[in-house]
Amino acid sequence: MNGSIAAERLSAISACSASEEGVTRLPWTPEHQAALREITRWMEDAGLTAELDAAGTLVGRSPNAAGKPVILMGSHQDSVPNGGHFDGIMGIALACLAAKRFNGHWDELPVGIEVLAFADEEGVRFPTALIGPRALAGTLDPAVFEMTDGQGVAMRAAMGAFGINPDDAMTLRRDPATIAGYLEAHIEQGPVLEAAKVPIGIVTAICGIARFTVAVTGEAGHAGTVPMKGRRDALVGAARLIGEINTRAVADTNLRATVGTISVKPGAVNAVPSVVDFTLEVRADDDARRDRFADDITAFAKETCSAAGLRVSITRTYEQRAVPSDEGLMVALAEATKETGHASLRLMSGATHDASAMADLCPVAMLFIPCRAGVSHRPDEYADAVSMGAAVDVLEQTIKRISIRYEA
Amino acid sequence: MNGSIAAERLSAISACSASEEGVTRLPWTPEHQAALREITRWMEDAGLTAELDAAGTLVGRSPNAAGKPVILMGSHQDSVPNGGHFDGIMGIALACLAAKRFNGHWDELPVGIEVLAFADEEGVRFPTALIGPRALAGTLDPAVFEMTDGQGVAMRAAMGAFGINPDDAMTLRRDPATIAGYLEAHIEQGPVLEAAKVPIGIVTAICGIARFTVAVTGEAGHAGTVPMKGRRDALVGAARLIGEINTRAVADTNLRATVGTISVKPGAVNAVPSVVDFTLEVRADDDARRDRFADDITAFAKETCSAAGLRVSITRTYEQRAVPSDEGLMVALAEATKETGHASLRLMSGATHDASAMADLCPVAMLFIPCRAGVSHRPDEYADAVSMGAAVDVLEQTIKRISIRYEA
Repeated sequence: MNGSIAAERLSAISACSASEEGVTRLPWTPEHQAALREITRWMEDAGLTAELDAAGTLVGRSPNAAGKPVILMGSHQDSVPNGGHFDGIMGIALACLAAKRFNGHWDELPVGIEVLAFADEEGVRFPTALIGPRALAGTLDPAVFEMTDGQGVAMRAAMGAFGINPDDAMTLRRDPATIAGYLEAHIEQGPVLEAAKVPIGIVTAICGIARFTVAVTGEAGHAGTVPMKGRRDALVGAARLIGEINTRAVADTNLRATVGTISVKPGAVNAVPSVVDFTLEVRADDDARRDRFADDITAFAKETCSAAGLRVSITRTYEQRAVPSDEGLMVALAEATKETGHASLRLMSGATHDASAMADLCPVAMLFIPCRAGVSHRPDEYADAVSMGAAVDVLEQTIKRISIRYEA
Repeated sequence: MNGSIAAERLSAISACSASEEGVTRLPWTPEHQAALREITRWMEDAGLTAELDAAGTLVGRSPNAAGKPVILMGSHQDSVPNGGHFDGIMGIALACLAAKRFNGHWDELPVGIEVLAFADEEGVRFPTALIGPRALAGTLDPAVFEMTDGQGVAMRAAMGAFGINPDDAMTLRRDPATIAGYLEAHIEQGPVLEAAKVPIGIVTAICGIARFTVAVTGEAGHAGTVPMKGRRDALVGAARLIGEINTRAVADTNLRATVGTISVKPGAVNAVPSVVDFTLEVRADDDARRDRFADDITAFAKETCSAAGLRVSITRTYEQRAVPSDEGLMVALAEATKETGHASLRLMSGATHDASAMADLCPVAMLFIPCRAGVSHRPDEYADAVSMGAAVDVLEQTIKRISIRYEA
C-alpha cells in the first residue's frame, strides 16, 4: 500500500526535470523549486510543517517536536543529469510515509520527527555537495558559496535567486544533544540485495575512499628493433599491477579497488611504452584495512617493478574516511526488519550519501533497498513498490524502537 | 682508415639539415639537394658515375657495368625530423668506400657495381615511402605522386621542383636477370650487437608485421557499489591479456609483440571500465610463426575473457610479410666477415628498410653494425668508426665472393 503510494509519488515528481529522458534536477533551479512544492505536499500529508532553511533543505517538522529529542530522516532531492526516479528522492518519499504513520498520535511519541529534503548531494552543478547536512553539522565552509557552475553562475547568486541567503546557512548548526539520530533510506545502487532476493539492506558503514595516481616509468623503444628480453615496457609492468590489484581485492568482500583510467606515452602502435599513468581507487568500510591494502599494493609494485627494470611512484591524491553506522541504530533497524517480517542483510555502502555528512552531527544509519540489475544514475533505474513498502514499515518500527529509549 | 673517412663524411653531410638539433632531411628539399651534391663527390671519388633517376635515386655506376650482372648497394639519404647522423646515409657512405676498393681495377671485376642513394625511406614527409626501390622493382603505384605533405604540396609538384618527372619513374623497372643482388649496410637501431660486442650483424630477414586492434567489452559500474566478484571489468581483462602477450613473446627470440596504445571507457577514477581498446603489433622473421602467435593469443583471449564475463574482438588492421635474406648472400657475408677477421652474429631486422622493397627485384641481404645504447631516430644516434671500417671490409670481400660466380 505505502509502496504503491511511494511509486506513484516518485513517478509524479520525476516530471520536475530539465530533461525528457530520465530525471535532471540540479539544485537551485526551477525543477528544484517544483520538486519542493511536491515534497511540501508529502510533508503536509504526513502532518509535518514544511519550511525551507537557508541551506536549501526543506525541513518537515512534526508538531510535537519542540523540546523533544528529534529523529531526522531524509535524503536529497537532486539527481545526476538523465538520472533515475529513485536515487535520493525516494529516501524523502519513504520518510514522509513513515512519519505519516504517527500523524494524529504525535503526542504519544516521546520524540519529534523531521524529514529533511537536502538540495544537493550529487555535486553535479557546482564542484561541491552536501551543503544541507554540513550546515546542520556545522561543518560547512562558506567559501563554497563563491564557487561557480558551468555557466559562470556563483552558488551565492543561485541561492539568492532561489530566495535564500547563504550567509544564514552558517547559523543552522544543530545542538547534537537535541538529535536522536539520522536515518536514510536509499536504493542500493549495486547488485547485492537483488542477487540475495532481500528487500532490506542494513548499511554497516559508508565506505572510506582513497585515490592514487600510479606512474610506471620504463624506457621507450622501437617495437621491432628492441628484443623482448631487454625491454623495460611500462605498460607490461602496469598491466601486471592491475591484474594483481584485482586479484587481491576480490579476496576481500568489504573492499573495492578500481583502476578507472590509464594513459600511455609515447602511445604509438610501434613504440614500446615508456610511461604509464593510471588511477587507483580503493574503498573499504574500515580505514585501517583500506590503508593496509594500499600499503601492500605499494610494496608489491615497488618489488615487481624494480625486478622488471621499471620505476613506480604511487601518490595519494584524495582521501575520505569511512563513516561507520551507529551500532544502536543498526540494531534498531535489524530488529524492526525482523518484527515487520522482512529479510535483511548487512552490507557496506560503496557510495557516499547525505548520511556521511550527518555523521558529524549525530548517530547515523541507513537502509538500502534493491534496485533492478544494480543500475543507478540512469533513466532505467528502478526499485519495486514491495521493497519500498517494506522500508516504510521498517522506518516506522525503527522510530518506535528508538522512541522507547526516550519514554518518560 | 675507411671507418674514419666514413665518420668524417657523415659528420660533414649532417650539415645538410633543416634543423640545428640532429639531422632533418626530408625528400625533395634543399637539404636533399645539398646531400646529393656531397654523395656525388663520394661516388666520383670511388670512380662511379653519378646520375639522378626519375624516382630521385642518385645512382653511382661503375664504368665496367655495361652488359655485366650488377651488384647493387645502398640505402636512403633521408632522415626523420631531428634524427641522427647514421640511419640510412651511413649505408650509402660505406657502399661508396667499398666500391672505391675496386677503383682502378674495374676491368678485372666480372660484375658491375651501382651505389643507390634512395630519396625517401622514412615516410615522414608524405604518407608513403620507398619510391626509389619500388621504381626499380616495378612495384611503384603512380597514385602516390598525388599524395600531399603537411603543407598541401603534392609529391608530383615536389619532385617536379626537384628537377625530375615522376611519370618517368614508372619506366625505371630493372630486368632481374641483370642484377646479382642488393646489399645494404645499416645501423642496427637496437641493442643486440652492442650487448654482444660484435661489430657485424648478418640480417636473416626483415621481419613481417601484423597489427591488430583488440577490443575488450565488459560492463560499466560504480567503483563503490559494485562488489569485486560481480564485476565485468574490461581493463582487468585487458591487463591480463597484455601480461600474457608479453610472457609468450619473451619466450620467442625472433618475435616481438608490443601493446603500444590503450584507451578506456568511460575513463573515470570511480567507474569500472566497460570498454578497453588496445593495439597489438607482432613482428617476426617468419610469417607462419607470427600468424601462429596471433592465433594462440586470440584463442587465449577468447577463453579467458569468456570466463571473466567479457567479450573480446581482435581485428587485423595491417599486414606486411617478412622478407627473408637470400641464403647465398648471407653465406657470402658470413664468409667475408670471417675472412676479414671480424666477429658476426645473425639477427633479424625488426625495422623495415629499402631492402624490403628491393626484395621484389632481386636477392637481398643486409649487414648491421652496432649503434650506441640501441638509440636511433635521435640526435645522439652513434656508430663507431671501427665498426664502420669493418663493414667496408666485409662489403668489399662480399663483392669479391659474389664476383667469383660470374667469372668467365
